[in-house]
Amino acid sequence: MHVDSVAGIPEVRPGDDVAELVADRTELRAGDVVCVASTIVSKAEGRQADLGDFPASERAREIAAHLSEVAGEEKDPRFAQAVLEESDELLMEAPFLLSATRFGHVTVNAGIDRSNVPDADLLLLPEDPAASARRLHEDLGVPVVVTDTSGRPFRHGQRGVALGWAGMVANRDWRGETDRDGRELGVTVQSVVDELAAAANLVTGEGDGGTPVAVVRDWSFGDHAGHDDLFRDPETDFVRQALREWEF
Amino acid sequence: MHVDSVAGIPEVRPGDDVAELVADRTELRAGDVVCVASTIVSKAEGRQADLGDFPASERAREIAAHLSEVAGEEKDPRFAQAVLEESDELLMEAPFLLSATRFGHVTVNAGIDRSNVPDADLLLLPEDPAASARRLHEDLGVPVVVTDTSGRPFRHGQRGVALGWAGMVANRDWRGETDRDGRELGVTVQSVVDELAAAANLVTGEGDGGTPVAVVRDWSFGDHAGHDDLFRDPETDFVRQALREWEF
Repeated sequence: MHVDSVAGIPEVRPGDDVAELVADRTELRAGDVVCVASTIVSKAEGRQADLGDFPASERAREIAAHLSEVAGEEKDPRFAQAVLEESDELLMEAPFLLSATRFGHVTVNAGIDRSNVPDADLLLLPEDPAASARRLHEDLGVPVVVTDTSGRPFRHGQRGVALGWAGMVANRDWRGETDRDGRELGVTVQSVVDELAAAANLVTGEGDGGTPVAVVRDWSFGDHAGHDDLFRDPETDFVRQALREWEF
Repeated sequence: MHVDSVAGIPEVRPGDDVAELVADRTELRAGDVVCVASTIVSKAEGRQADLGDFPASERAREIAAHLSEVAGEEKDPRFAQAVLEESDELLMEAPFLLSATRFGHVTVNAGIDRSNVPDADLLLLPEDPAASARRLHEDLGVPVVVTDTSGRPFRHGQRGVALGWAGMVANRDWRGETDRDGRELGVTVQSVVDELAAAANLVTGEGDGGTPVAVVRDWSFGDHAGHDDLFRDPETDFVRQALREWEF
């Protein structure tokens, strides 16, 4: 498997054609998978926003007051409002905002980025990363994964994750497959889109030398069953249930 | 970045020299990172066990009774005992056992494997994967990551994670670095050992065609600060705190 970053992607503006920016800079072949950071997808889709776009509701003011108290510094209720508007459910209100986005991804601050946005206060995640991936897949002709970096419980640090994908399924399903000795495998579902996003994140990076696109070559999904269930159903996500009942 | 699986690793037995098995099958160069599945490290270290090795305590019988009730099928109290003995703290008792291992990794069933173990009921994780990685690193002369696959909250499926590593640090620390426009980066800590483990898992795999070792080539940690904090401190892991107080 080769994972190569695509050099020379310029700063992306609203309306830019991301597929064209990628296709102009690398020769894609059948079997390649293109991993695109959601930041440039968001920028092309015009998801820049200003705090002024989010007049704070009573609820947002309560949340920000609680956060300010816990953090010992003033938190902007308009930012809390932005997170609420981008979220389906707020899972933690303090000491930070953890929520499920409207498309099912659980992350801090609904994935709203406050760095890396020229000419705006905020960059929201793509509204529907699966649809974004589908459009890119149609134009590029190979599977596409729209990625982000996200923290996680239990382990420090962020790692690449998939937000949307098209042209491939999210998971290899090993159920029913056996090991060398014919025993049923312990691992049943392998989230390959997340692993592709993680691999891409090793070569893309965030800094001013970073590039937001990577191409995975000479890798194959293989002859496995698969499915697209990446975001857990809230009703069987026990950690999500525990967080609902917990108060900081 | 290239990620290649190492073909031809035989079934590993207690006392086998894993470093030798790897070094005999691939030519390592400076800059390579070797990712080794914890299964073969455990096997070489004699971590096979039988249920009979874990006579159930009163606590294990209680846990198994609760699990059996929830699952609607009989659960073996000796397996619950094995999980207790491998764990520092039990975070969920139902509908499955989630615990923190003695070395800090939070996972289901303390990572005990019930498949892929010839001649034994169970395969325990390495007792100290960091020490295992250090020994492999000393023998192989390049950085080593001891990996496992593990599920996670919020997202379906398992993905490769690092349990131990040596010859490199776990995380890139981007704090203080800036984007193209000089703004401070949103991502502060990137868990590269987990991303390497995820990349390796894409080419190793579990099935009877699978191989437990991958080599990452032409990748560089780069000129970043770094540190080794991969497993969150229980006192500032809010999800862990929420789970402590939650009952299924």
